[in-house]
Order: sequence, then C-alpha cells, then structure tokens
Amino acid sequence: MKERLTVIKVGGKIVEEEVSLCQLLDDFAAIGGHKVLVHGGGRSATKLASQLGIESRMVNGRRITDAETLKVVTMVYGGLVNKNIVAGLQARGVNGLGLTGADMNVIRSVKRPVKEVDYGFVGDVEQVNAELLASLISQGVVPVMAPLTHDGQGHLLNTNADTIAGETAKALARHFDVTLIYCFEKRGVLLSEADDDSVIARITLADFEHLVADGTIQGGMIPKLENAFDAIAQGVSQVRITLASAINQPDEGTLIQS
Amino acid sequence: MKERLTVIKVGGKIVEEEVSLCQLLDDFAAIGGHKVLVHGGGRSATKLASQLGIESRMVNGRRITDAETLKVVTMVYGGLVNKNIVAGLQARGVNGLGLTGADMNVIRSVKRPVKEVDYGFVGDVEQVNAELLASLISQGVVPVMAPLTHDGQGHLLNTNADTIAGETAKALARHFDVTLIYCFEKRGVLLSEADDDSVIARITLADFEHLVADGTIQGGMIPKLENAFDAIAQGVSQVRITLASAINQPDEGTLIQS
Repeated sequence: MKERLTVIKVGGKIVEEEVSLCQLLDDFAAIGGHKVLVHGGGRSATKLASQLGIESRMVNGRRITDAETLKVVTMVYGGLVNKNIVAGLQARGVNGLGLTGADMNVIRSVKRPVKEVDYGFVGDVEQVNAELLASLISQGVVPVMAPLTHDGQGHLLNTNADTIAGETAKALARHFDVTLIYCFEKRGVLLSEADDDSVIARITLADFEHLVADGTIQGGMIPKLENAFDAIAQGVSQVRITLASAINQPDEGTLIQS
Repeated sequence: MKERLTVIKVGGKIVEEEVSLCQLLDDFAAIGGHKVLVHGGGRSATKLASQLGIESRMVNGRRITDAETLKVVTMVYGGLVNKNIVAGLQARGVNGLGLTGADMNVIRSVKRPVKEVDYGFVGDVEQVNAELLASLISQGVVPVMAPLTHDGQGHLLNTNADTIAGETAKALARHFDVTLIYCFEKRGVLLSEADDDSVIARITLADFEHLVADGTIQGGMIPKLENAFDAIAQGVSQVRITLASAINQPDEGTLIQS
C-alpha cells in the first residue's frame, strides 16, 4: 500500500502576511504523513515591481512576464517567499526544501506560444521528474515549491502555482496515495456566490458540467475545478478546495471525486 | 577509497555578469566527478538595495544586514543569482539544486553577537548537516549554495560565502576526497601585490605565518588563508586559490598544503 502524501497549494495572500503565514505554517506542520507545500507570491511581486518602477500587467489573471518582471518574480517567489517559508518550517521541526522547477530538473516547461496574448516568460508544464523528489520525500524531506519552472535551455519561466500543484500531485501519485488541497479565500465551491455557507460538500464531474452549464460555477473557479478533475483522472486520490485555516479539517470545503 | 568532490567558491562579480557567468558555468560543467558551487552576489544586492532606497553599509568588508537588507539579500542570493545559476547548469546537463542553509537544514548558524559592531542579521556557522547532502551528491545532484543560513528559529541569516564553502568542504570531507577552490580576482596568492606573475605556487602553514609576520600577506587574504589551512586541518585534501578561468588548470594558482 502506498504511503499518504498531502499536497497543499496556498496563494500569495496567506504566505505574504506575517500572522497568516505563521498560522499556515503551524497548521501545515500539524499535517500527518508526507507533504508538499506549493505557494504563490503575486502581491509581493507586484509590490516589488512597483517599487522598482516596473508596471505589472495582468491578462485573464495571469501576469505578463517580460525580462525585468521575470527577475522580480525570481527574487520574490524563488527567494523571499520560498526561503522564509522554509526557515519557518525548519523552526517547526519540518525539514523543508525550497525548490523551483529548475532545481533537480523537477519541472520542465515550455515558453507559452504567443497567440492573442504574449505572456512573455511564462511556462506551460511539459514534464515533472518525480523520482528524486519522491525519494527525498520518503526520507522525510518536505518540498516547498515556488511557482517557477525552467525550459532546459537556461531560462526560468513564471508558472501558475495551481498548475504546479496539480502536475506535482499527479506525478507523485505514482509513488504515494495523494490528497491535493487547494486553499481558497472562500469555504469551498459555493452554490451561491453571495452565501458563504452554500458550500458544495462533494462534486462529481457530472455535477460540475451541469453547474457550469447553468452558470452557477463561473470565472476562475472553472480552470481550478478542471485541474482538480484532471488530477483525479490521473491518479490523485482526492482533491479538496477549502480555507487555508481548514487544511486539517477533512469535513470542511468541497471534495472533488471521480 | 572516497570518491572525488570539488567545491568551487565564486564571488559575486563573476556570477553577476552574463558573459563571465556563461564562461564559469561552461568551466564548472567540465569538472569531472562530484561537485558543489558556492556563490556570492554582493554587487547585485547593493544595486537592488540602492534601487529600493536602502543604504548599503559595509564594515571590514562585511555587509551590515538590517531587516530590509536581509530581504534584499534573500531575494538576490537565494532567488535571482542562485536560480539563474541552477537553470544555466541544467542547460549544460548538470543537475543543479539551489540551496540556502535553511533548505534541508543544511547549515545552521547563530546570529553574530554584538561586540564593537552590530552586523545585524549575519550568521556565524554552527553546524553543517552533510548526510542528506552527501547522499544527493552521490546520486548525481550538484548543490548550488547561496550565502544564506538559518538559526533554526525561523530566521534567515546573511553568511559569508567563503565561510560556507569552507564549512561545507570540511563536512563533506567525511564522505568524499575534497578539493576546495576559492576563485579569486588575481592568479593566486602573490609575493608582490604589484606583480601579477609573482604567484606563490605552494604554501604551507609555516610559510603563511612567516609571510604574514613580514607583511607580504595582508588584508582580506589573511582570513581566506586561515580558512584554507583550517579546512586542510579538518580533512579537506587540498585547497587552491586561483582565477575563476583556471578552475580546470590544476597547475595554476596557489596550492595550500598541510
């Protein structure tokens, strides 16, 4: 039987503020079994870019990443946010190891082709090399993954953290019994945006297609759930969308099932 | 018999300029056997600090590291410089893994006590945990180490790259036959500062003490050589001080012997 592994994805807001970061690290440290943390950092990147006089341009919620912006996200995601999380985990007895996709060639991507939008140095994941990662995890190491990958030609690429979490979870599902948790600013997937208590406890692919067709689920939740169902289809045992404060409460949030 | 391992320390200047970085990565990739790269990044840190309106203060060649400066060096050393080196090595078929001392708790340090000078968030190395590092190296991973450590209490600490190289070399000498190479802006230790060809080919501890006493060796070269002799005394097979362009030329530079 495979050992259990939990992959947690948290957005920038939680890891960029001292109080919420401390709470998250406490909660993350309390998770039993093997684990991986994937983080964002967009607000800090926008702040640093602004301080340096670099304009932040977003299209469809994604950052246009020119050469100067790539330096900013490399500093913020790969350096500031990632290493502070690792140091914070070490203080809690969790043997964190900060990684970008370039490190140990864990995630190789390809620069997104220019269609209607030129996203610049943004990567679409091609391959996750999970063998060495799985071996380290089995030895008690806890990977902390920044939303950066590389193209194998010497270039770093800015890469969506949700995608990194999903792809990593799928690749590790060959080695572990994986639960993937997307932390979200709401309690879960809601039946009604206006009602925070209208959490859908469980959702199947058929439910999802129905709820998209009738307009209940829309916007950024659609790709998030598509990623979740794709992960399930490719061997991840379960996916949950929940509050960061509820990562240790399995009855909270929305559970995505096959 | 132990397998060979080369630890290379390069200063900021070489890794911060595109042309010299490419040359270094080519040369580093050509080194046979196991290897580790330790880098600086001071010039980029000073530049970013200046852009952010943070004053860079140096005392005895060491950066006074207040809270804002710590953020800067975390971004520059742990992010920008480190991850670009790793991506560049991956493009050359070298399986780089970027690390600070916080990652896998590789190097734990203690905040330097305040005496005449308050250096701020600067770390003095207490312990190198080389077991997991040695295991990864044996599996073909090439650690790329930024000059940052942690105190085990959640704080990153700015740490001299020469010290990181020396301490890492000593800790790995239990597992490997280690050669430590300090890259230098001159061809080696010089008998006469004014004569670049006056390289001392080999130097013993007795020679060193004599040359310090008579004023031939002075300034920043003294702690560098003290570190070198300490490494030799603690199991490192040989230490060389040479040009970055000469890391694959064993007859160049100054060889430090017991």
